[in-house]
Amino acid sequence: LPSKLPNAGTTIFTVMSALAAEHGAVNLGQGFPDFGADPALLQAVTDAMAAGHNQYPPMTGVPALRQAVAAKLNALYGSAYDADRDITITAGGTQALFTALQCCVGTGDEVIIIEPAYDSYDPAIRLAGAVPVGVPMTADYRLDWTAVRAAVTPRTRALVLNTPHNPSGRVATEDDLRELERIAEQHDLFVISDEVYEHMVFDGERHQSVARHPGLAARSFLVGSFGKTFHVTGWKVGYVAAPAALSAAFRRLHQYTVFTVHTPTQHALAAYLAHPAPWQGLGDFYQAKRDGFRAALAGTKLRLLPCDGTYFQTVDYGAISDLPELDFAKWLTTEIGVAAIPLSVFYQRPQERRHVRFCFAKRDDTLAEAARRLRRGL
Amino acid sequence: LPSKLPNAGTTIFTVMSALAAEHGAVNLGQGFPDFGADPALLQAVTDAMAAGHNQYPPMTGVPALRQAVAAKLNALYGSAYDADRDITITAGGTQALFTALQCCVGTGDEVIIIEPAYDSYDPAIRLAGAVPVGVPMTADYRLDWTAVRAAVTPRTRALVLNTPHNPSGRVATEDDLRELERIAEQHDLFVISDEVYEHMVFDGERHQSVARHPGLAARSFLVGSFGKTFHVTGWKVGYVAAPAALSAAFRRLHQYTVFTVHTPTQHALAAYLAHPAPWQGLGDFYQAKRDGFRAALAGTKLRLLPCDGTYFQTVDYGAISDLPELDFAKWLTTEIGVAAIPLSVFYQRPQERRHVRFCFAKRDDTLAEAARRLRRGL
Ligand SMILES: CSCCC(=O)C(=O)O
Ligand SMILES: CSCCC(=O)C(=O)O
Repeated sequence: LPSKLPNAGTTIFTVMSALAAEHGAVNLGQGFPDFGADPALLQAVTDAMAAGHNQYPPMTGVPALRQAVAAKLNALYGSAYDADRDITITAGGTQALFTALQCCVGTGDEVIIIEPAYDSYDPAIRLAGAVPVGVPMTADYRLDWTAVRAAVTPRTRALVLNTPHNPSGRVATEDDLRELERIAEQHDLFVISDEVYEHMVFDGERHQSVARHPGLAARSFLVGSFGKTFHVTGWKVGYVAAPAALSAAFRRLHQYTVFTVHTPTQHALAAYLAHPAPWQGLGDFYQAKRDGFRAALAGTKLRLLPCDGTYFQTVDYGAISDLPELDFAKWLTTEIGVAAIPLSVFYQRPQERRHVRFCFAKRDDTLAEAARRLRRGL
Repeated sequence: LPSKLPNAGTTIFTVMSALAAEHGAVNLGQGFPDFGADPALLQAVTDAMAAGHNQYPPMTGVPALRQAVAAKLNALYGSAYDADRDITITAGGTQALFTALQCCVGTGDEVIIIEPAYDSYDPAIRLAGAVPVGVPMTADYRLDWTAVRAAVTPRTRALVLNTPHNPSGRVATEDDLRELERIAEQHDLFVISDEVYEHMVFDGERHQSVARHPGLAARSFLVGSFGKTFHVTGWKVGYVAAPAALSAAFRRLHQYTVFTVHTPTQHALAAYLAHPAPWQGLGDFYQAKRDGFRAALAGTKLRLLPCDGTYFQTVDYGAISDLPELDFAKWLTTEIGVAAIPLSVFYQRPQERRHVRFCFAKRDDTLAEAARRLRRGL
């Protein structure tokens, strides 16, 4: 069976979670919370099932949920998305990214991804028949527009943006988006904007959604995720916001990729989003966890890199070990008892750095235990 | 935005459901029940959420659910699927079909589909870069192996089987599967076997799963659906059973298409499948509905075609009208007040027949009201 993804193995998240479980390590690898969601949200699913919302929803998503998404985006970012025309509910962020890429690029096209790049971009681009072109960030994980410009060719058709950025924890600036808008307009590129960490931005910084920039929004598929925002990563409900023509193209493929998405969960999310801004406080919540985790690691030789958003803290372990990143992450897991994600897996080509990523979407006692093991072991 | 599916409109199921709602028609179009699921199953979702099963499950699916699926298939069909190696949980049957096709066919390949063919096969094949080749069933909707053999070329790489068959309600025979096995082995074809109606087989007939035939099972992706079986079409959980090499190829793509599937629902289904054969009685349940609906239509000029399985009844309206099928289905919906699906949408090329499909997965009073309208109006 000749594979369209000959080089794809099992995702690093699965590998490290399995290794963590096997060795009793504290799992700060795969990005998911180890605490519960709001009981009101769980109750809303129960209510939706009891109300009989268990059959196929509309292909584009439950209307009340689409309306809630459009209202949120338009209120936060000053955009003008129309719930019926521009919003489609997806089976999570991964499916949204996959389908958006299938519908805007094809054989012979090139798609720029910013490295380190989330691990599903590359295979989703390849499955569309296109070629991913990795453009590195700067040494301190800023977007490098000179490098992006240099990577554009006549075949470049799209760019995948991710802000707040996984794994670096960096947040794009307003200037970044202005520059992206110029490049995208000049070269007529589509933008797939992965904004699943939109509500996790710290220190008074502001999330720069493509939705804030009309010229960009006009050519962008904006991807969001309820699983990340409401601590239910296993529920797999997200959305794509895109102008009418792009949404029409998206839906044409969406209906044959998954067709529709878990009905009771859609109704539950719609009911939950009717509360006043239920994502409010999420930035502060994770900022406190970030601060606590950073403080607890201050005594180690791990160098803490800046973290402006997401729930990931990246560290440089060069002062401790010269092991390559994957080996160090495995060693951390099996010998120190803390699982991490090596940044090497976010690149097409081998890197010289010594960086791993910790997820701090964990209970305070989990983070304290991880820090204790790291302080003792390193 | 040049589409990879230039001819795809909105699925007929969405179109007819919308038209039915607009005109207050009894909706016997799209295939979903208008009655509730077992409260014990809904409770199991609530229990799973309360137990904290709300984060990413394993990429291949919750182990207990994979075990339940393997155990069911092996008990019913005498197969030897291994829960860890051969079963993958999917975001419904559509995603299972889509991903299976992406992983076994590509540019230049031909895939045989049996017409009338469920509407997602054609676009899923085209999205894989391959060409769907429609082979008609016989006039009474039997599989036509002479026609299949005639359609095989050196480029034929796979065949999509669907039994029990939507929309005809026909069930493949043991001889059919033997013949398919011979053809598939002779020409080295993959088989994508859509068996989502496996438990809806009537009059003592037996569902012919590819899993009953080791030679076939060895080259097949068997697709099943919990939504169809447990009256929760909106839950979007299904599975693919396939031998190790095929499952490995499937999972490689699955992890970048949706990655994982609604965790609490997976746990709930696993718990529910631990009851003794919870699908038992489903055939009798739908057989009674079929019999009641057929009896109620006996007084009309609609000719009832045979129905051995699924929850669809196909009728010939040639004695009533010479309208093409789509026009007749729309007229039925808007003028008579009963929505149906025209069989024309299941073919690549225009047909001369006068057939529409009714879904009888409805409450008895719904079916009675539909029959009353049809008797009065026709
Ligand atoms: C989809 S599994 C991985 C979760 C995640 O987003 C991450 O850990 O980076
Ligand atoms: C996936 S929507 C259509 C439901 C169905 O299987 C049918 O009506 O044929």
